[in-house]
Amino acid sequence: MTTVLYEHPLNERIRNYLKLEQLFAQTSLSHIQDNIHTYHQVFFNALFAIIDTLERNDIRGDLIKDLEKLEHNLDKWMDAPNIDITAIEVNLQQTRGLITQLKATPPLWCQLKDDKLLSSIKQRFAIQGGSSSFDLPQLQFWLHQPIEKIQLDTEYWLSLLTQIISALDLVLKFIRQRAAFEEIISENGFFQANGEGLLLLRIKVPQSADYFPTVSGNKFRYSIRFMLPCEEAGRRYSNQNTAFQLARC
Amino acid sequence: MTTVLYEHPLNERIRNYLKLEQLFAQTSLSHIQDNIHTYHQVFFNALFAIIDTLERNDIRGDLIKDLEKLEHNLDKWMDAPNIDITAIEVNLQQTRGLITQLKATPPLWCQLKDDKLLSSIKQRFAIQGGSSSFDLPQLQFWLHQPIEKIQLDTEYWLSLLTQIISALDLVLKFIRQRAAFEEIISENGFFQANGEGLLLLRIKVPQSADYFPTVSGNKFRYSIRFMLPCEEAGRRYSNQNTAFQLARC
Repeated sequence: MTTVLYEHPLNERIRNYLKLEQLFAQTSLSHIQDNIHTYHQVFFNALFAIIDTLERNDIRGDLIKDLEKLEHNLDKWMDAPNIDITAIEVNLQQTRGLITQLKATPPLWCQLKDDKLLSSIKQRFAIQGGSSSFDLPQLQFWLHQPIEKIQLDTEYWLSLLTQIISALDLVLKFIRQRAAFEEIISENGFFQANGEGLLLLRIKVPQSADYFPTVSGNKFRYSIRFMLPCEEAGRRYSNQNTAFQLARC
Repeated sequence: MTTVLYEHPLNERIRNYLKLEQLFAQTSLSHIQDNIHTYHQVFFNALFAIIDTLERNDIRGDLIKDLEKLEHNLDKWMDAPNIDITAIEVNLQQTRGLITQLKATPPLWCQLKDDKLLSSIKQRFAIQGGSSSFDLPQLQFWLHQPIEKIQLDTEYWLSLLTQIISALDLVLKFIRQRAAFEEIISENGFFQANGEGLLLLRIKVPQSADYFPTVSGNKFRYSIRFMLPCEEAGRRYSNQNTAFQLARC
């Protein structure tokens, strides 16, 4: 059965991680190559939102703490019976490498703040619809250069984020592995439970379903309410018993 | 010779027209079909910026005035000798049709403000990087529907803007035809002239050039300064005699 996966972070740290993961996906270079003249909007919007998120939060500090926790857990798992030692060793090596890289000061991504082109266009991109070509002749000049030059620049900018991207991938991979999906039937389209110790809810709903989950929650308690996309007989809530899959990570 | 075209509006009305023209180009449906899951960012960002621009300015009133001026001019040209009467008649008919459509109240695009999906996600899109999937489950639901349903919705939204798009295309076509390009050599990378009666500057620079024009100006006077993309020997300005083409529309 084809399903749609909805993820919901239960604290600010995981919320930033998921946000960054989505923004990094939007900077994917394959798109840039295909259709730079329209796609640069997505690329720069995402890049500037990444820089802002990294500036306003101690993402690096959070990632280092999460990686150190992971290192500790991987170390413990080494002694467990029937374990794939090689797989653990690979992860352990990667984890230790990333901790060392992230601890190196100053962080690489800070160089993005000093980039001449980026800093000259950043402010305009913060305004919705503000990136008109007549306000940004320097961007138009850049976009009309040979594609190899454009690729060199974009690859360089993204290379400054590689450490953060790799650390984020590894940390999120292990957070998502904390729990398997269970089948749940919610009564009247509503489900709530204890959220202590949880970081992330992952909810799978059949693609054919005519409802979607909205989650509210904190580290103590969370609730999932299934909504209808359009008002039906004056209701916005689904009041059917609703089957879904839930992984409490 | 391949050139890069830079356009610069000389008043607020033309500035809004050019901005809208670029935003409309970003809502082009062919992109949506190709890669909806990343491209919807551009589509919705542009759509919301269009709605805001239409709300904050009397674009409809401006377009009606410009179309009426155009109707008047076309009427006069009918009497000129050696003129292609058929071509004028086609434009005249289109102009009169658009004036009638635009004067119909209330304007169609206002229905976009009442759309349930649009109004539920608009606010999040105003925040840079704010359109994370976990904040917008209703959007995620919409994106996972069959592509035919997505196309129906996007086509419907754009259909509400057709009148504005057609009027804008026609008005800008005639504004751009107001002047032909002339070859100009600027001294020390700087050029200035009288701007009275002008609406729009169009500047063509060879694609191989290592400089780009920045324009400052109002309806009385404008100046064009050619800039270097990177600092060279401490300079940001080009101080060479610079050849370019200029159309004063």
